[in-house]
Amino acid sequence: SNKEIRTQRFRYRPYSPGGTPFGTSDRRYLTMNNIGYAFTVKTGEGSSSSRSTVTTSFFDLGRYKEYHFEDLYGYDLCSLTEDGALFAQSKIGRLHYRAHNNVESWNKLVPLQNSEKITSVAATSKKIVVGTSLGYVRTFNLFGLPLEIEKVAPVVALAAQDYKVFAVHFSPHHGITYTLFEQNAQTGSKYYNRETSLPIKLPVDLENDDVEELSETFAAFSPLGIKSVFFSAYGDPCVFGADDVLLVLSRWRSVAQSRWIPLMDTKLELWKSSNGREVKDLHVWPLGLTFNVLNHILVKGHHVWPDFPMPLPSEMEVRVPMLIKSEIQLGRDAENEQELQIPVQMAAEEEFVRSKFMSELLTDTLEHEGEVYGNETQILASLNAAYDKSLLRLFATACSEQDIGKALTLAQELKQDKALNAAVKIAERAELMNLMRRVNDIREARYEQQLNNV
Amino acid sequence: SNKEIRTQRFRYRPYSPGGTPFGTSDRRYLTMNNIGYAFTVKTGEGSSSSRSTVTTSFFDLGRYKEYHFEDLYGYDLCSLTEDGALFAQSKIGRLHYRAHNNVESWNKLVPLQNSEKITSVAATSKKIVVGTSLGYVRTFNLFGLPLEIEKVAPVVALAAQDYKVFAVHFSPHHGITYTLFEQNAQTGSKYYNRETSLPIKLPVDLENDDVEELSETFAAFSPLGIKSVFFSAYGDPCVFGADDVLLVLSRWRSVAQSRWIPLMDTKLELWKSSNGREVKDLHVWPLGLTFNVLNHILVKGHHVWPDFPMPLPSEMEVRVPMLIKSEIQLGRDAENEQELQIPVQMAAEEEFVRSKFMSELLTDTLEHEGEVYGNETQILASLNAAYDKSLLRLFATACSEQDIGKALTLAQELKQDKALNAAVKIAERAELMNLMRRVNDIREARYEQQLNNV
Amino acid sequence: SNKEIRTQRFRYRPYSPGGTPFGTSDRRYLTMNNIGYAFTVKTGEGSSSSRSTVTTSFFDLGRYKEYHFEDLYGYDLCSLTEDGALFAQSKIGRLHYRAHNNVESWNKLVPLQNSEKITSVAATSKKIVVGTSLGYVRTFNLFGLPLEIEKVAPVVALAAQDYKVFAVHFSPHHGITYTLFEQNAQTGSKYYNRETSLPIKLPVDLENDDVEELSETFAAFSPLGIKSVFFSAYGDPCVFGADDVLLVLSRWRSVAQSRWIPLMDTKLELWKSSNGREVKDLHVWPLGLTFNVLNHILVKGHHVWPDFPMPLPSEMEVRVPMLIKSEIQLGRDAENEQELQIPVQMAAEEEFVRSKFMSELLTDTLEHEGEVYGNETQILASLNAAYDKSLLRLFATACSEQDIGKALTLAQELKQDKALNAAVKIAERAELMNLMRRVNDIREARYEQQLNNV
Repeated sequence: SNKEIRTQRFRYRPYSPGGTPFGTSDRRYLTMNNIGYAFTVKTGEGSSSSRSTVTTSFFDLGRYKEYHFEDLYGYDLCSLTEDGALFAQSKIGRLHYRAHNNVESWNKLVPLQNSEKITSVAATSKKIVVGTSLGYVRTFNLFGLPLEIEKVAPVVALAAQDYKVFAVHFSPHHGITYTLFEQNAQTGSKYYNRETSLPIKLPVDLENDDVEELSETFAAFSPLGIKSVFFSAYGDPCVFGADDVLLVLSRWRSVAQSRWIPLMDTKLELWKSSNGREVKDLHVWPLGLTFNVLNHILVKGHHVWPDFPMPLPSEMEVRVPMLIKSEIQLGRDAENEQELQIPVQMAAEEEFVRSKFMSELLTDTLEHEGEVYGNETQILASLNAAYDKSLLRLFATACSEQDIGKALTLAQELKQDKALNAAVKIAERAELMNLMRRVNDIREARYEQQLNNV
Repeated sequence: SNKEIRTQRFRYRPYSPGGTPFGTSDRRYLTMNNIGYAFTVKTGEGSSSSRSTVTTSFFDLGRYKEYHFEDLYGYDLCSLTEDGALFAQSKIGRLHYRAHNNVESWNKLVPLQNSEKITSVAATSKKIVVGTSLGYVRTFNLFGLPLEIEKVAPVVALAAQDYKVFAVHFSPHHGITYTLFEQNAQTGSKYYNRETSLPIKLPVDLENDDVEELSETFAAFSPLGIKSVFFSAYGDPCVFGADDVLLVLSRWRSVAQSRWIPLMDTKLELWKSSNGREVKDLHVWPLGLTFNVLNHILVKGHHVWPDFPMPLPSEMEVRVPMLIKSEIQLGRDAENEQELQIPVQMAAEEEFVRSKFMSELLTDTLEHEGEVYGNETQILASLNAAYDKSLLRLFATACSEQDIGKALTLAQELKQDKALNAAVKIAERAELMNLMRRVNDIREARYEQQLNNV
Repeated sequence: SNKEIRTQRFRYRPYSPGGTPFGTSDRRYLTMNNIGYAFTVKTGEGSSSSRSTVTTSFFDLGRYKEYHFEDLYGYDLCSLTEDGALFAQSKIGRLHYRAHNNVESWNKLVPLQNSEKITSVAATSKKIVVGTSLGYVRTFNLFGLPLEIEKVAPVVALAAQDYKVFAVHFSPHHGITYTLFEQNAQTGSKYYNRETSLPIKLPVDLENDDVEELSETFAAFSPLGIKSVFFSAYGDPCVFGADDVLLVLSRWRSVAQSRWIPLMDTKLELWKSSNGREVKDLHVWPLGLTFNVLNHILVKGHHVWPDFPMPLPSEMEVRVPMLIKSEIQLGRDAENEQELQIPVQMAAEEEFVRSKFMSELLTDTLEHEGEVYGNETQILASLNAAYDKSLLRLFATACSEQDIGKALTLAQELKQDKALNAAVKIAERAELMNLMRRVNDIREARYEQQLNNV
C-alpha cells in the first residue's frame, strides 16, 4: 500500500530492435527482424571475458548465407539490413560495418564525451545513424563519411528505412518522445515529428502484476520496456512495447496530424487463440509487420524473449483491440473442447474499424510513395469491400432491433453504391419503409453530387 | 525548510467538468455547466453502497424538465449536453446515454485492460469521446458505433463542442499537456494541437498556503486541481485551474500559433469586489464563458466547491490580471465604507489589453465559423471603440507628463482615424505642437496607404 | 553506488545572460554580452544590505561611456542593449529602464501573484519582455506600455533581438523547453517554436565529476546550468550550457524543421590549445557569437565565472566536435614542446561538416533577412570553397586507399564544377580509370541538368 516511488537515476543501455538480454546464459541476440538475426556468444574464459563470437543468421536460407566472426571489441549493438550489418560497441564508440557479400567492410570511431554511450545504431541501404545517451545523433553515408550532427533528447532506440529514421528518446526532464525524419541528399531533409510524445509507459510505471511478468532482467536491458521498433513493409513506424500492444503511426506525412493506432493487443489474441484461457507462459516476440500480418517468434516458457536455438517465425493477423472479454461466450465445440463465440456485432465493429485503419495507412503510402509490391490497389478494393460488409452486418442488426436512428447513421458511413443498394433491400425485408426511403435518398444525393463533380 | 518532495504514484481519477467530491456527504455533483448539472445520491444502506439515485437538473426550467433514475452501476462520470446526458462507470467501462426527451437511450461497454479506467467522457450533439488512464481515446457516433481509437498520453479531462474535442493529459513522463482536435466525417479529421504543454500546475507543486486552501480532498478528487474545462460560447477552449485563473486558448486554428491568455484572476476580482479585503471563505466555481462573462457559482464557506442545494448562478465580467495591488488606493466612500480607487492609467492599460484580446478571439471565430449569435460585428465595433478610448486616455496622460516619445507610440497603436484626430486635439490642447504634427503625419501616411490599396 | 536521486523542489532564480553569482564576494555581474556588462556592488553595511551601486560598462570605450547609479531596490536582473539597460527586481516586480544617453528613463511595477518572481527580462530596441516563475510572459513597448500577456511553462531565461524573443522554460512537469517567437506590430506575431524540447541537462543530472567542476554555487545560481543564451550576430538563437558546448538553432524559420547544432565543444578546444593537456582551471565564459567566432572571457582559477576586474575578451573559432582524442598523435615540435597532430582525414571531415553548417545558417539568414553586414555573399563563396576543398582531401585519401565506392560518394557531394574537375585529375593520377570515368559522368549529368533548367 506504500505508493511512493523512488526515483532512480535512469541508466542508458545499448539497445537494438528485437535484441535480448544475456540473462544467465553466455549468449544473446543482438538484434532480430524480418530478415534475420545476429547473436553473440561469449568465448573468453576467466577474466578475458570480452572475447566473443558474433554470428549473423537469416530466415531466408536460399537468399543469404550465415556467417560469423571473432569479436575482440565486445560489440553490443547491431543493425541488420538486406545488404549488410552494422555493429557497434557502445562504450568505446566503435562502428564496424560489413556487407553480407563480404566485399566491403570498414571501421570507424565515433567521438564520445565523458560518460557518453552509443545507445542505438541504425543502417539502411542509404544511410547510417548513431544515437547516444547525451542525445548526439550523427548521420554517416554508407562508407562512414560524417554528414550531419545534431543534439536532441537522449536516444534510447533507433530504426531506419531507406532515408527515413525513427528515434525514441527518454530523459527524466524530456519524457518519452519520438522523432521521425528523412535525410535525403537529393530531396533535402525533412522532420515529420520532432520529440513528440510517445504513448508508452516505463516498466517502472506498470502495475505490479505486469512488472513481474516482464521481469527485472528485461526492464534493466530495455529501460523503456520496448521489445522492438521497426518500419512496416509499407513504411510506417511501429513500436511494440512492454504491454505487448502493436502501435503503428498513421498520417505522419501531414504536419501535426500523426497519431498512434493500436493495431493489435497480442495478449488478447493469445487469450483468444487459447480459447479464453489465461496464458502466463506464452509471449509474442515481434519481428516485423507486413501489411496485416505480425511476423513474430512465439516464445514459450519463463522468459518473455526468445532463447536458443531460434524457433521458426509465426504469423498473426492484426485485430484492433475492441473485444469485451466479459461479453464473449465460452462454448463447447463438437468434441467438447472449450471454444470462443465472439458476438457478431462485436466482430463486425472490429472489422469496420480495422478496415478503416488499414485503408488509411495504405492510401497514405500509395499517395506518397506509389505502389510498393504492385498489388496495393487490389488490397485497397478488398479493404473497402470488408468495410462495407461489416457495416451492412451492423445495419441488419439495427434493423432487426428497429433502431432506425442508428441504422441511418450506419448507412451514411457506407462507401459503395452497391452496399447502399444492399442496405435498401435489408430495410425492405425488415419492413422499415421509412428507413428504406431515407437510404434511397442518400443514394440519390450521392449520385447528384457525382454528376455535379463531372 | 525541508524542500524534498516525495514522488507519489499518480492516481488517475474519473473526472467530469465542474464535478465535485463527496467530501463527507452522501451526494456530489457529477458535472456542472451552463446548461445544468447532474448529481448522484448514495441510497444503498450498509454494505450495498453502490446503489444510487442520479438526478439531471437544468438552470433553464422553462426549456428542460429535471429527471432522475435509479443507478445500479455507480456511474461516476457524466457529460451533459443540450440534447442528452452521457453517464459512465470508470472501472467497469460502462456507458449509458439518454436523451433528455427520454425517447432514446443505449448502453455499451468499453474494453479496458487490466488496471485501466475511464477517466473522462464527453458528448456533443455529433460525437461521443471516451478517454482512459492508459491513454486510449475512443470516439463513437451518437448511437455508440465505434469510429476511431488511438493511443495518446493518459487522459485526465475531456470537453467537447460539436466536432471539436479538447483533452487534458498527464503522466509523470509526458507532463501536463492538452490535445485539441476535430473529427468531422464530412470535412475530415484535423489536429490543432497534439499533447502540447498546458501551463497549469499540479496541486502538489503549489505553495503550501494555496494547497491548504484547495484542500487535500479536492486534490485527491481532481489530481491536476482543475475545477472545470469547457468551450466558450464562441468556441474557444477554456481551463479553470487550482489557481482560480481563467485561461482561454487563442489563435488555435493557426498551426503552432495557439497561446493561453489569462482572461481573469477570479481571486483578484473577489478581492476587488470585497473592496480590498482578503476573502478566505469565498470561491468562484466556474460554469462557462459567454463572450466576456464568466457564469459561475459563488461558493461561500469552507469548501472550494458548491454544496447542496445548488445556489443560483452568478456572473462576472472578465478583467485581464494587470492590477498592482500596492498601487491601488483604499479610500472611503460617502458612508465611510472602504472603497477601491484604481488609478486611471492602470484601468486604461487593462482595458487596452482586454479589448485587444477579446477582439482577437472574436475575429478568429467570425472568420472561421461565421456569426454565431448574429450580433458579433456590432460587438467587434464596440471592442475597437473601447480599444481606442483606452489608448486615448493613456495618450492624454503621456501628454500631461510631456512624454512625447511614449505619446507617439500610443498614437501608432490607434485603430480608427477619428481616434487619431482626437489625439491631434489632445496634443494641441497640451501645446505639444511637434507631437501634434507627428500624429498628423501618421494620419496622412495611413490615408495614402488606403488610397494605394484601392 | 547509491543511484537514487532525491527530487528537490526546483527553485526559480532571477537569471540574466552571462550573469554571475556573488560567491563569497560583495559584487557580481548582473549580465554580460558582446556590448558590455552591468555589475552590482553591495554598499549597505550591517543590516541595510539591500543598498547597492550598479555600474554599466562597455567593451567599446570609444562608443559608450561607463555610468553608475545608487540602487535602492536591489536590482537582480538586467538586459543590456546598444541603446539602454533594463533592470528588474525579481521579488517586488519593479522594472527600471534607462537609455545609455541618459535622456530617457522610466519605472514600472509588474503584477506578481503570491510566490511569483520575475525570473528573466529581455530588452531590444523594439520591445521589452518579462518572464516569471509562474510562466506569465508580459511584453511591453519601449515606454512600458503593456502589449501582450500569455501563460506558458515557467520561464528560466530570456534573450531577445529586434522583434524576436527566445525563452527557456523549466518545470518538473513540463521539462526543459524553449520558445522562439516574433512580435511585430507591422507584420504580426509568429511562433517559430513553442515549448519545444531543449537538449540540455540539469546540473543535477550531470555525472559527479562534472558537477564538482561546475560547483554547487553556480548550480544554485543558474538552476539549468546555463552560462548564457543570446542571438548570434546573424540572428540565430544560441545556448551555452553547463557542458560548455555551444548549441546554435538552425532552420528555425521553417515549421517543425529547427534543430540544435553543436557548433563547438569549448572544453575540447581548450584541450587542443593546451596541446593535449587536461586543463582543470581554465574555462570559457561566453559573450556572443559573430559568424564563426565565439567572443568570450577566458576564466582562470577556481570558479567557472569571471571575477573582478573584468579581463579582456578573447576570440575562439568554432570547430564542430568531431575529434577522437585517442586518434590524435601527441608529437614534439622543434623545441621539444608537446604538440598535437590532428590526422588529415579527421580535420577534413570536420571542415566538411562545419562549412556545411555555417553555409546553411548563413543562407537561411540571407534568404529571410537579406544582407546584415554586406559581405555575406563573399563569405558564402569561401564556405563553398572550403566545403569542396575538404571533400577533395577526403577523395584523395580514398583514392590512395583504392576505395572506389567511397571516393564516388565523396565526388557526388562536391558542389562546384571545378572541384569535380580536380577530382577527375586526382583519380587519373591514382590510375583509377573507372573512377575517373564515373566522376566525369557526374559532371556531364549536371551539365545536362543545367541546360534543361535554362
